[in-house]
Amino acid sequence: MKRVVIIGAGFGGLALAKKLQKSTQYQVTLLDKNNFHTFQPLLYQVATGGLEPGNIAYPVRRIFRDQSKINFKMCEVKGVDPLANKIFTTIGDIDYDIMVLAQGAKTNFFGNEQIAKHSLTLKSVTDSLDFRSNLIQNLESAINTMDEHDRSSMINVAIVGGGPAGLEMAGAIAEMRNYVLPKDYPELDFSLMRIYLFEAGNKLLSSMSAYSSKKSLEYLTSLGIEVRLNTQVKNYDGKIIELADGTKIPCQTLMWTAGVKGNDLPGMDMFSHLKGGRIEVDQFNRVNNLPNVFAIGDIALQVDEVNPKGFPMMATVAIQQGKHLGENLLRSENQKDWVPFKYFNKGAMATIGRNRAVADIAGFKFGGVFAWFLWMFVHIISLVGYRNKIVSFINWVENYINYDRPLGLIIRKYKRSKVDKVEEQTILE
Amino acid sequence: MKRVVIIGAGFGGLALAKKLQKSTQYQVTLLDKNNFHTFQPLLYQVATGGLEPGNIAYPVRRIFRDQSKINFKMCEVKGVDPLANKIFTTIGDIDYDIMVLAQGAKTNFFGNEQIAKHSLTLKSVTDSLDFRSNLIQNLESAINTMDEHDRSSMINVAIVGGGPAGLEMAGAIAEMRNYVLPKDYPELDFSLMRIYLFEAGNKLLSSMSAYSSKKSLEYLTSLGIEVRLNTQVKNYDGKIIELADGTKIPCQTLMWTAGVKGNDLPGMDMFSHLKGGRIEVDQFNRVNNLPNVFAIGDIALQVDEVNPKGFPMMATVAIQQGKHLGENLLRSENQKDWVPFKYFNKGAMATIGRNRAVADIAGFKFGGVFAWFLWMFVHIISLVGYRNKIVSFINWVENYINYDRPLGLIIRKYKRSKVDKVEEQTILE
Repeated sequence: MKRVVIIGAGFGGLALAKKLQKSTQYQVTLLDKNNFHTFQPLLYQVATGGLEPGNIAYPVRRIFRDQSKINFKMCEVKGVDPLANKIFTTIGDIDYDIMVLAQGAKTNFFGNEQIAKHSLTLKSVTDSLDFRSNLIQNLESAINTMDEHDRSSMINVAIVGGGPAGLEMAGAIAEMRNYVLPKDYPELDFSLMRIYLFEAGNKLLSSMSAYSSKKSLEYLTSLGIEVRLNTQVKNYDGKIIELADGTKIPCQTLMWTAGVKGNDLPGMDMFSHLKGGRIEVDQFNRVNNLPNVFAIGDIALQVDEVNPKGFPMMATVAIQQGKHLGENLLRSENQKDWVPFKYFNKGAMATIGRNRAVADIAGFKFGGVFAWFLWMFVHIISLVGYRNKIVSFINWVENYINYDRPLGLIIRKYKRSKVDKVEEQTILE
Repeated sequence: MKRVVIIGAGFGGLALAKKLQKSTQYQVTLLDKNNFHTFQPLLYQVATGGLEPGNIAYPVRRIFRDQSKINFKMCEVKGVDPLANKIFTTIGDIDYDIMVLAQGAKTNFFGNEQIAKHSLTLKSVTDSLDFRSNLIQNLESAINTMDEHDRSSMINVAIVGGGPAGLEMAGAIAEMRNYVLPKDYPELDFSLMRIYLFEAGNKLLSSMSAYSSKKSLEYLTSLGIEVRLNTQVKNYDGKIIELADGTKIPCQTLMWTAGVKGNDLPGMDMFSHLKGGRIEVDQFNRVNNLPNVFAIGDIALQVDEVNPKGFPMMATVAIQQGKHLGENLLRSENQKDWVPFKYFNKGAMATIGRNRAVADIAGFKFGGVFAWFLWMFVHIISLVGYRNKIVSFINWVENYINYDRPLGLIIRKYKRSKVDKVEEQTILE
């Protein structure tokens, strides 16, 4: 039996492992630092209290129950030595015959450490719970503040990045402001709450059609979100956002969704890292010069004629690559030749609040209620585990009927302004 | 308008606040360190992965939506000055005309700091998530351990305390071991996993009938739980449990449910604190010598002929006292005399795993499936918020059919052995 070790139980890693369940020659070891798979496209729902972590995350061991071929190990990967076929982890060294890098991407702050330190992100369950706690704690503080300037800085929210994640966050927050928060916080005047969306480029959803860019801008504006295109956030100290043109905006909640880059992996440095921290692979997802190392999903930089800079970093690409690599490995078992990967573009969607979404699918571009229902349908059928589907569906239906978001517990205490205090104390001492 | 300040949004505080919604003369301020009410009787379900935090906790602000008379403030109470009518909190000083202490109880380690430091508790959502994470992380570690002694210490679980909480925990863990964990961790031999229940007294459920004590022991034993009566836990270092008779048991997960005591409140010290940190009150729940200070629920020590040492520290007492105090306050509005509190004993129940429960109600004592269904029914109708009812019901039905516990995410990374090192991740608290 050959040992295939997959680093990361995201969309790509799971798709590959599922394929290899049929194998007779491969023993699969799947590594992840969490004991669960995260359905990242719905993290914004956890962040804004519409769903609970358990609705969008599912324990990896449950997925592979009764699959003796798939071995899961919860650990962090510290580095690799591809020449010695070794992976260094928090639970010891792991040998492999075939290694598949599927560790995904992380937030890219483009080197701005100040922004990295003070802003919130949306790449994990932890991130989304932090955002939720931060927002609610700021509202609780705002009630006790007499100073109007402080209060507006506590209740304002800014999103940086005009991609699907940024739009979805902005839309969900706007609906909270418009329908939910005034009921929970009668003490506060939410007409004073500003929601900003900053995008450095000249349009929203730059990877989608011109129709979707335009339509989504319309939707955001109708929800009362202040969209600023061609606007770069230059700095952020946790309280004041500084734009490239010098404008200063008081805002204690800033969510950064303006970029991602591949997750570093010490030991892979010498092998063809390219733009955005992604690892170059050939048509078979093989890492150049390493015959038994592959990369799939966000971490892999694979090109075709339509996508000379690499495929978009999204779930569908990862799933297709994972499945395809699995099929190729199974082909080896049957002495068949490998088939090069071909990306099938399923289209793209983004939702902006209730009843509003945009979709570019198979040459069609459309928006409105139908796009929104389609978006909901696609996401519900994609959620891992039927229990999550039922619960999520109930939550959504209830939100839909009541214009409400039922959840709002501060499970993880979190407060930006406290972070500074603690650090100040350390410096003083 | 007189200002009534209630400390604590537990069962007692909520019941009182709800009553005072009808008032024309009182303005109510409700304080709690969390922004949500916790349904404590079901914490063990969150701890063992059967329910999610959002199912048993509900934001206080939602409960009092559209109730302009009820003001909620999230803060910690640092102390009080009953002679100056002042409450000192993390958001500043609060004045009151009437103060109601409803801050509940906390775990009592009877002065053993070693045990306090290394054991897990079950008084809050945070506690229950910690238990869950601790258990799962120990199982993940056990897989990577070659040493048999270490491995058994990682998978064993001990519960200290033979009250309802201890029995419910033990039963839920036994069912996990018997039906769920072997599917998720085929690498481990769960016939080696020991579940202990230590009780210092000579019977379980000492506050219930002899029938219930005997029957519950039968149930626990049939689930494979090792119940040890007349057994005192003398010490615990996080790895080895030391009993009073010198026996040493390797066990890295110890849940302490052996006692509770009233939550301290600096400033109340000089006013009649009695046994177990409870504050003595008269028949009107008034704190002796303080005409405008009241105490209800676990923190209040109120006696009658049947309960000369005070009423049991449970939800029903708190709810009855909260309602009653509310009615008395409303009587003042109508120039009516106050009525002394009379405790109506609704009986007691405890559940031990699936299909097994014991109940002492109105002189009847019974066990088995009927008691279990009654237990489930009573708890579901008591959960705050209809959404929680539906979701909890679905979870339970699914568990019932599948012999399963669907949830098992490590949301809060937690490991006892690491606590000393890092004070575990400031983000968490």
